[in-house]
Amino acid sequence: MDPRAAAVAAPVDQNMVSSAIYRDGHRVDSPPTLAETYQRLREQPGVMAWIGLYRPAPVQLLAIAEEFGLHELAVEDAIVAHQRPKLERYGDTLFVVLRAARYLDDVEEVDFSELHVFVGPNFVITVRHGEAPDLAAVRHRLEGDPDLLRRGPEAVLYAILDSVVDGYAPVVAGLQHDIDEIETEVFRGDPRVTRRIYELSREVIEFQRAARPLLTILNGLAAGFDKYGTDEELRRYLGDVADHATTAAERVDVFRQTLADILTLNATLVSQAQNEEIKHLTEASYAQNEEIKKISAWAAILFAPTLIGTIYGMNFEYMPELRWRVGYPFALALMAAVCVSLYLVFKRRGWL
Amino acid sequence: MDPRAAAVAAPVDQNMVSSAIYRDGHRVDSPPTLAETYQRLREQPGVMAWIGLYRPAPVQLLAIAEEFGLHELAVEDAIVAHQRPKLERYGDTLFVVLRAARYLDDVEEVDFSELHVFVGPNFVITVRHGEAPDLAAVRHRLEGDPDLLRRGPEAVLYAILDSVVDGYAPVVAGLQHDIDEIETEVFRGDPRVTRRIYELSREVIEFQRAARPLLTILNGLAAGFDKYGTDEELRRYLGDVADHATTAAERVDVFRQTLADILTLNATLVSQAQNEEIKHLTEASYAQNEEIKKISAWAAILFAPTLIGTIYGMNFEYMPELRWRVGYPFALALMAAVCVSLYLVFKRRGWL
Amino acid sequence: MDPRAAAVAAPVDQNMVSSAIYRDGHRVDSPPTLAETYQRLREQPGVMAWIGLYRPAPVQLLAIAEEFGLHELAVEDAIVAHQRPKLERYGDTLFVVLRAARYLDDVEEVDFSELHVFVGPNFVITVRHGEAPDLAAVRHRLEGDPDLLRRGPEAVLYAILDSVVDGYAPVVAGLQHDIDEIETEVFRGDPRVTRRIYELSREVIEFQRAARPLLTILNGLAAGFDKYGTDEELRRYLGDVADHATTAAERVDVFRQTLADILTLNATLVSQAQNEEIKHLTEASYAQNEEIKKISAWAAILFAPTLIGTIYGMNFEYMPELRWRVGYPFALALMAAVCVSLYLVFKRRGWL
Amino acid sequence: MDPRAAAVAAPVDQNMVSSAIYRDGHRVDSPPTLAETYQRLREQPGVMAWIGLYRPAPVQLLAIAEEFGLHELAVEDAIVAHQRPKLERYGDTLFVVLRAARYLDDVEEVDFSELHVFVGPNFVITVRHGEAPDLAAVRHRLEGDPDLLRRGPEAVLYAILDSVVDGYAPVVAGLQHDIDEIETEVFRGDPRVTRRIYELSREVIEFQRAARPLLTILNGLAAGFDKYGTDEELRRYLGDVADHATTAAERVDVFRQTLADILTLNATLVSQAQNEEIKHLTEASYAQNEEIKKISAWAAILFAPTLIGTIYGMNFEYMPELRWRVGYPFALALMAAVCVSLYLVFKRRGWL
Amino acid sequence: MDPRAAAVAAPVDQNMVSSAIYRDGHRVDSPPTLAETYQRLREQPGVMAWIGLYRPAPVQLLAIAEEFGLHELAVEDAIVAHQRPKLERYGDTLFVVLRAARYLDDVEEVDFSELHVFVGPNFVITVRHGEAPDLAAVRHRLEGDPDLLRRGPEAVLYAILDSVVDGYAPVVAGLQHDIDEIETEVFRGDPRVTRRIYELSREVIEFQRAARPLLTILNGLAAGFDKYGTDEELRRYLGDVADHATTAAERVDVFRQTLADILTLNATLVSQAQNEEIKHLTEASYAQNEEIKKISAWAAILFAPTLIGTIYGMNFEYMPELRWRVGYPFALALMAAVCVSLYLVFKRRGWL
Repeated sequence: MDPRAAAVAAPVDQNMVSSAIYRDGHRVDSPPTLAETYQRLREQPGVMAWIGLYRPAPVQLLAIAEEFGLHELAVEDAIVAHQRPKLERYGDTLFVVLRAARYLDDVEEVDFSELHVFVGPNFVITVRHGEAPDLAAVRHRLEGDPDLLRRGPEAVLYAILDSVVDGYAPVVAGLQHDIDEIETEVFRGDPRVTRRIYELSREVIEFQRAARPLLTILNGLAAGFDKYGTDEELRRYLGDVADHATTAAERVDVFRQTLADILTLNATLVSQAQNEEIKHLTEASYAQNEEIKKISAWAAILFAPTLIGTIYGMNFEYMPELRWRVGYPFALALMAAVCVSLYLVFKRRGWL
Repeated sequence: MDPRAAAVAAPVDQNMVSSAIYRDGHRVDSPPTLAETYQRLREQPGVMAWIGLYRPAPVQLLAIAEEFGLHELAVEDAIVAHQRPKLERYGDTLFVVLRAARYLDDVEEVDFSELHVFVGPNFVITVRHGEAPDLAAVRHRLEGDPDLLRRGPEAVLYAILDSVVDGYAPVVAGLQHDIDEIETEVFRGDPRVTRRIYELSREVIEFQRAARPLLTILNGLAAGFDKYGTDEELRRYLGDVADHATTAAERVDVFRQTLADILTLNATLVSQAQNEEIKHLTEASYAQNEEIKKISAWAAILFAPTLIGTIYGMNFEYMPELRWRVGYPFALALMAAVCVSLYLVFKRRGWL
Repeated sequence: MDPRAAAVAAPVDQNMVSSAIYRDGHRVDSPPTLAETYQRLREQPGVMAWIGLYRPAPVQLLAIAEEFGLHELAVEDAIVAHQRPKLERYGDTLFVVLRAARYLDDVEEVDFSELHVFVGPNFVITVRHGEAPDLAAVRHRLEGDPDLLRRGPEAVLYAILDSVVDGYAPVVAGLQHDIDEIETEVFRGDPRVTRRIYELSREVIEFQRAARPLLTILNGLAAGFDKYGTDEELRRYLGDVADHATTAAERVDVFRQTLADILTLNATLVSQAQNEEIKHLTEASYAQNEEIKKISAWAAILFAPTLIGTIYGMNFEYMPELRWRVGYPFALALMAAVCVSLYLVFKRRGWL
Repeated sequence: MDPRAAAVAAPVDQNMVSSAIYRDGHRVDSPPTLAETYQRLREQPGVMAWIGLYRPAPVQLLAIAEEFGLHELAVEDAIVAHQRPKLERYGDTLFVVLRAARYLDDVEEVDFSELHVFVGPNFVITVRHGEAPDLAAVRHRLEGDPDLLRRGPEAVLYAILDSVVDGYAPVVAGLQHDIDEIETEVFRGDPRVTRRIYELSREVIEFQRAARPLLTILNGLAAGFDKYGTDEELRRYLGDVADHATTAAERVDVFRQTLADILTLNATLVSQAQNEEIKHLTEASYAQNEEIKKISAWAAILFAPTLIGTIYGMNFEYMPELRWRVGYPFALALMAAVCVSLYLVFKRRGWL
Repeated sequence: MDPRAAAVAAPVDQNMVSSAIYRDGHRVDSPPTLAETYQRLREQPGVMAWIGLYRPAPVQLLAIAEEFGLHELAVEDAIVAHQRPKLERYGDTLFVVLRAARYLDDVEEVDFSELHVFVGPNFVITVRHGEAPDLAAVRHRLEGDPDLLRRGPEAVLYAILDSVVDGYAPVVAGLQHDIDEIETEVFRGDPRVTRRIYELSREVIEFQRAARPLLTILNGLAAGFDKYGTDEELRRYLGDVADHATTAAERVDVFRQTLADILTLNATLVSQAQNEEIKHLTEASYAQNEEIKKISAWAAILFAPTLIGTIYGMNFEYMPELRWRVGYPFALALMAAVCVSLYLVFKRRGWL
């Protein structure tokens, strides 16, 4: 048995593969293998299959592609992943690449997951490469709204797009929260904020890269579902999704501008704060030197009488003053006079 | 009785709900309940109803939506609010989202209020989520201009748009005033101005987000009222509103540029001022050190004779000079000579 | 008599109102009152009236509007003024808003004047709100060129537009001159230049706001005169005016770029110059401290022999050295040895 | 024999010229000279020739151009090289200029090679001016896929374009790797990173210059192969190539933005780090001066008793204290008192 | 004789005026006066005249305009000069304004020359206002290529455009060379480079102003020669010229970006270098102060024994120590002990 056939015949693993048959908006079957899913589709006209894959093995995807006639290029993209969001049409099958986003609160990061959707006349195949979006919830919502599900594979695509775009809202809110925090930190002068601004900028650019092409896809679909037969109502719903996506994309554009402003602002404030500190230190140094100057000046004032004392301490035999009765008071007075004179001179010069 | 029916049957609360019936440009009735409003519309062809809601409960809005056949997506938007300004058409009903703005002088902030308008063939429903614009004044103006009001629901939409755009003028004036003040503060070197520039930038970006999509709406309406039946004259009036909105939007664009320039300017000026202060402090330090240097130099000059005095103050028995008659004058002369020499040396070296 | 009729019947004041009747390119009459102007227009088919108003009272404008059937919105704009340049068509009347500019050499400012022009089938009404452009000169030129004037009201509009755009050339030259001066000041390091750059940037933005919409108007007119009946030749003339306006607008765009570059350049140069000064001061301080260090070192060198002198100046009874014959020379030699040793040590350590 | 004929008749040098004849997707011949290649093409309808040239001499290219009727302007471009990527159509021949890129790990540079391709109805001529792309590998791939090769010269063009665009992926990865390293260096504060950021920016701009026009070419070809007869499938393949090229171009656009951010970030961080160092040095200086101040203050405190000692060391005959019994203890006490007083004064003033 | 007739009748001055008659791609006559040129054109159907003027007197240009029916506005532009590059059509005459550029190596400046070309059905009039381009070379080339010249006046226009665009290549190379030099200077830290960057930016902006409108002209001509009858081949040649012009314009756009990057880079590097110098100076100051501190500390250490010496030098009668036999050794030991203690204290405090 060749590996592709084996992949198709294997019982579906609920974690990795899900498969359901819908008729008229209701789930009518959950075939245990992909092979049986194919059979149902072939035997029962008017039913629709939704096959969900989570990180499928290439061989599995190739087997499914063979069955549904998916185009080789699209399948290659779905295997390789790392595609930009895009919408392509191969015959009567649409191939949609999406980037869902989740905000991870604990690490303050946006986590992107790639999702590939094949939408054919009577089937939808979803290939998830990450955790988001929660396709089980999408399936649950659709099964609870038969009116919508009855509209066929395009309704499933709509519900997935809606879920992806709804998932952007908490990301935008998380980014907004980070920006608000950063703003506070910038004004508080936290030195680590520079790095945080830069890292958030990169998150925002990544998000723009995910959301911008999605806008193009959504607007294209809303404007006529790529010429694919769609009813008016579904188009309106897609218009609503496009509108929410635009709101998200515009807010993120504002984030980018705001972060650029904040980066400049932070550079200015940090530089101001540092200069302010240097200025204060320089002022303190000035005051300190002023004290050193005063100490030096006082020392100089004390030094002058010492010179006089040293003179009269010399041991020359013929020093007339030594024998004066008033020699000693005279010397003391001379010392005092010198001190006072120096004090006055220094005072006038601002040295004291 | 189900809550929707109850909401409709309840007497209208003038603060929260207003309801009026117009015929041929004049108010002909003010039904006390929404139920009666519906009845009038059904019974009297050619009349128009204007129902004004202020922060309605979801159930109330849903009841009204049911009566007028408003589209589910539009109603959801009106309940959730936080929409971007937009214009959508559901069948023969237009759904318009607007952001009115007020300038709060005391806190120097722009206050935005979301307003939703449903314009049908014979009704206008306005849903206010904030204080602006003053719809009572709009109603008053329209009731005083039957020629205009006679033109039907689109005339009401025009009058609301006119009021919203007129409300932008004082905001623009307020922002201009703030920018002028900031300019003065920047040149005066007020350190808190950095934060004010940043905060005003954010206000300006917010205002751009409100006014830009409105421009698209107005130009779309003026270019043909979304293919909706409109008379030439009304289109001209809308063109006039679009013109005023463009003036406001362009001035705000200039504000954004100006604020970016001011941010750079402020960074430059603050950095210049701080460097200037540091330079002055460094100059002052230099002058101070010059004085310390002089004091040290003078101290050194005084020190040399002290050494001589100390030498002749030694108690050796055999010190011939001590017995010289001219020993003492010689010592004094030596001291003076050393002082003068040092003075000259220091002077030549620039140490004094 | 109601005030409007009074305004119309009043004799025209040459300073505030001018009125002339043209036929076949020549002035045939200058009616003394507006009432008579109207009469001429009504009685004589094939004539054209040009009424010039300078800051008219609202009542006067309203009276004229009534006579010529000018649209209420246009008249409101003309009364309120502060409009952006625009071109609007109401029935067979064009309404043009222009911003003329003059360069005031003494205060280095651009002075803008708003001008409103109504162009009807057989009349031109000009409403000036400022000094520029010199409409008397335009009238003079036209009256000297009957070939042009014969082409009717559109020719007058052309001549006014030509005059407005010609008036931009000296403004552009003035701004260029300012930029050249600023450039010189920036490289010379004039500290007041920062403010001048900022203020000139604002002038340039203002000028862009005046000239850009004018370009749109002129290109629109040149491309077909708003579907208004115009001859090929006039269109060519308008094309020429549009061309000159484009030249002006492009140079001003370059000014904006250049000023942005200059702002960055100035910030860089100022910061360099200040840092250079701080560096020089720091270098000077270093040299100064070097001197203080040397003085201190010399003082320390002098201090060591003082200690020796002090020791031998002690009065102990049993100090054997004092009685040595060579005590005194020994002490002097010791002093010299200490000085020389210290000198060598300090020299080796770089303290001298 | 003229040089062109000689060039054509010369046996092909496998390093410089390669020549092959294909029929129905398979290589049927490898003529030893260009002359024989021409003959095959003329004699055997339905075959296709692929001539590969590596830096051909002008005469060789001119000889080939003569044979295939290549347009003079295109040939001139192929000789001169240094063209921007472009697509031109001369009659039934397409002329494509491409810039292939390789990432040179060792020197961290992107190496660009110009490639010219002439695509005619039954021939492809490739002119390589550099090492990339590996056309031998392209030929190998095509010869292994007859289904593709059977589609004719356009299939060869597709395979070349695919190879060029595939070659961009490692370049993008290399640039990404450099940016990641630079980021780390910026946060680590490596001073040489400034130059590296600048040099990488220039590489990125060069790459943008190569990739952007290629996008235009690919989208043009995918949208209809320049009106050239192409089958649907080939167009889809070209669409896929265009998609990969867009992904590369978009990532490189993000690189440009990121590098601009990093440049600002680096300037901020470097300036912060330097200011921080200056601040620390200034703080250290302050602490140092504090010590100098204390030393000076202690010296001054020691100096005061010295003055007293000097006074009582004077040799006046009439100094009553000298004869007091308590003279000596008194002097010592005076000294201690002065020291303590000074200590207290200095302490209070913060000089100690 | 009126001045215009005189200008026409004057013999042509080869430096200022050149005139030639072409038939079927060959020069058939070089009339000595403009009057004779006119006559040839009138008498001989199928000939083409090329009149070249260098800075003509207005009267001369007006005389020629009269003969060829050139439009007054175009002639005015050609007299006034200082036009932006443009293409205008007056009846069957094209009026083209071009800006040729030369790179002046010695002063590192781009020299722009304005060139005006009138292209009529059977004449080309070129009006040069500067040295570039070398129209004699263009004439020479054309006369050597009768196949091209035979295509008529448009061929002459093509050859002129080709020459102008070819002249851009050395300018681009010169600017590239300057940028490379500037780059080196920036990394070497040459302080004058700031000014050079700014001045080169202005040259680049000027060049962009010359080349951008030319691109529009060339693309317009290549896309259909302004609806003027042109053969396919000439259009292809124009496409080639447009291509070269685009290459030049794109490289200059990259220059602008690069210079902006370099300006930022230079500011960063200069500021880093200055801060580095200030840091080194501050470090040197620190080391210097450390030495001053040590000198002060050593001085203080020497000072303490001096105090002791001074004490025992006092002349009190009752000083018991003086009479001790071990007084002197005790004093010396005390001195040593004080010195050692101070040394240890200072050492512990880091003052030594």
